[in-house]
Amino acid sequence: MDPRIEQHAEVIVEHSTTVEADDNVLVMAPSVAEDLVVAVAEKLGEKGANPGYHLRSSRASRAYMRAADEESFSLADHKLAEMEETDVVIRIGGARNTSETSDVAGRKRAAFAKASKPIGEERMRKRWVATVHPSPGNAQKAEMSTEAYADFVYDAVNKDWDAQREHQAQMVDILDPADEVRIVSGETTDVTMSVEGMVTANDYAELNLPGGEVYTAPRPDSVEGEVLFDKPLVRHGREIDGARLVFEDGRVVEYGADKNEDVLGEILDTDEGAKRLGELGIGMNRDIDEFTYNMLFDEKMGDTIHLAIGKAIEHTVPDGEPLNESATHVDMIVDMSEDSFIEVDGEIVQRNGTFRFEEGFEADV
Amino acid sequence: MDPRIEQHAEVIVEHSTTVEADDNVLVMAPSVAEDLVVAVAEKLGEKGANPGYHLRSSRASRAYMRAADEESFSLADHKLAEMEETDVVIRIGGARNTSETSDVAGRKRAAFAKASKPIGEERMRKRWVATVHPSPGNAQKAEMSTEAYADFVYDAVNKDWDAQREHQAQMVDILDPADEVRIVSGETTDVTMSVEGMVTANDYAELNLPGGEVYTAPRPDSVEGEVLFDKPLVRHGREIDGARLVFEDGRVVEYGADKNEDVLGEILDTDEGAKRLGELGIGMNRDIDEFTYNMLFDEKMGDTIHLAIGKAIEHTVPDGEPLNESATHVDMIVDMSEDSFIEVDGEIVQRNGTFRFEEGFEADV
Repeated sequence: MDPRIEQHAEVIVEHSTTVEADDNVLVMAPSVAEDLVVAVAEKLGEKGANPGYHLRSSRASRAYMRAADEESFSLADHKLAEMEETDVVIRIGGARNTSETSDVAGRKRAAFAKASKPIGEERMRKRWVATVHPSPGNAQKAEMSTEAYADFVYDAVNKDWDAQREHQAQMVDILDPADEVRIVSGETTDVTMSVEGMVTANDYAELNLPGGEVYTAPRPDSVEGEVLFDKPLVRHGREIDGARLVFEDGRVVEYGADKNEDVLGEILDTDEGAKRLGELGIGMNRDIDEFTYNMLFDEKMGDTIHLAIGKAIEHTVPDGEPLNESATHVDMIVDMSEDSFIEVDGEIVQRNGTFRFEEGFEADV
Repeated sequence: MDPRIEQHAEVIVEHSTTVEADDNVLVMAPSVAEDLVVAVAEKLGEKGANPGYHLRSSRASRAYMRAADEESFSLADHKLAEMEETDVVIRIGGARNTSETSDVAGRKRAAFAKASKPIGEERMRKRWVATVHPSPGNAQKAEMSTEAYADFVYDAVNKDWDAQREHQAQMVDILDPADEVRIVSGETTDVTMSVEGMVTANDYAELNLPGGEVYTAPRPDSVEGEVLFDKPLVRHGREIDGARLVFEDGRVVEYGADKNEDVLGEILDTDEGAKRLGELGIGMNRDIDEFTYNMLFDEKMGDTIHLAIGKAIEHTVPDGEPLNESATHVDMIVDMSEDSFIEVDGEIVQRNGTFRFEEGFEADV
């Protein structure tokens, strides 16, 4: 076996989820990721944990959802019962075809997601990690060979996460006590928001592998301005290009896209919370230097920020502060590498992708 | 998709497990069987059932068990909780390599099986079926091409199970009220046992797909004589050939085998119940006309009987009758096609593989 797969498994089990003896572990993976499942299973055996293995089959999901009546979806009690007794969830992605569920109607997907919501909520209460096994479909989406894509993935996931945590802590120290954040890029993006009272989290690959961002929650009513998301977003196999959002009092009042605008419209129509921001994230993983059409990687890229419409991440919103609720959470990326800056409480903290605490930063231009 | 896969899925969902709306269903399958999982998922969608999918990875099991300390195995509460809330279990077999777990120590396997026992017991209380997706490893084991093996599997599983039930009912009518059964084959097998008070079950593909046997439980103390199992038995990738057992007062007092005798010894040493019979089965599926080294098929073959050492099947033992308890249940086959007969209460009911109620039966020779 490729030793990088074993190293990936070690990061998952030792660093991201810190599995201990007798932990009940759920490993969820597509069939194409069986090599990584085997490597993880070996580590779980060494730990004395109790694993269960779920097959994530996008082909089966597609067949099931297409055949089912929208009204027939109900909560799968057996899956909820299992999740309640689970300590650690290891969620592995990877596809032979990333567009496998592209012909499932959005309303069916939404109805199924709604019926399954308690399982997802329960999962969020566990120690969990989401990662990806380098697979031909993901490589193709990235327009890379499978071998080159594997190099890319292992560079991003098998790294010194303690050093990464320290690097990112510098940005947490800036953002956590801040009130107002302004993001400007070219002529197309100028948006401000308040993060007052919210918590800035340091993602060093505990929940996401790769990690590599700091993130917080904007106050739901505070967002003003317009944003052009100049990196595309892939949603259920369909690519939204050139998405634009205009905010007033925190709410999306205008939207558009160059491609698949209807998909963006569907997302915004999910519920009231889908029209407001739930997250501001700042990418800081310098080993992710290519855009690969996979949000797990793209949002961690150095030189980018992302905004998510929909549900806020609970641990970024202290009790008593307003938490944006929604059934959805969709990240969208702005390229900050050129003609861009991030301003925190009136001070520029990043210009053209370089942070104030990095070499080459220019305070004024 | 091969329409026979869809038909297989229909037999599983409609006939074997009679899935209904809102049933919580567990589909357990190896990655090589994903096509059948997809076809089953579609049927479950039509029914309005709630599926969960388990990956059965023999590679992961091997890695886990080899890495773990024998003492570290404990009950996986999350898997038990899930099983308790499950209505229907669909267990799909199939392998790329049927010897994948052959280098896991027997004592580890036994320790793991012991820790997991409550999950298996809970599963037996559900509507469940075990079947096989035609896979390269199984085809190789059968010394057949994958295509020819697929033909073989679909002939055996996609058939008129109502007609099969009626055919087998004739043997149930003979065996159910019987007291003594004697099985004679050549010079090497002559064994008698009492089935008095036990229930004879008709397997028409409810629990096993293919089905095609009638079976009951010998009274544990009643077995006398010797048996040569002239069809091989594959246990965890190792083949036991020419197994011989000698019974006195129901207990194995002598054993031997031409190949892998130590594996047979390990099975007999599992516990006290492993030294007694738990099942007498009579194969009646005439569409299974080749021996393929897969007990699910082999034991249903016309012209064979099988005896299982270990645990009796609960629904064949009425309350108040002695039920043989064991952690194991291992089927072993006797070829009855030549120089053989089955005698029930002194009357010959099958000679050289032909039943009394079939054409060509000879009462005397």
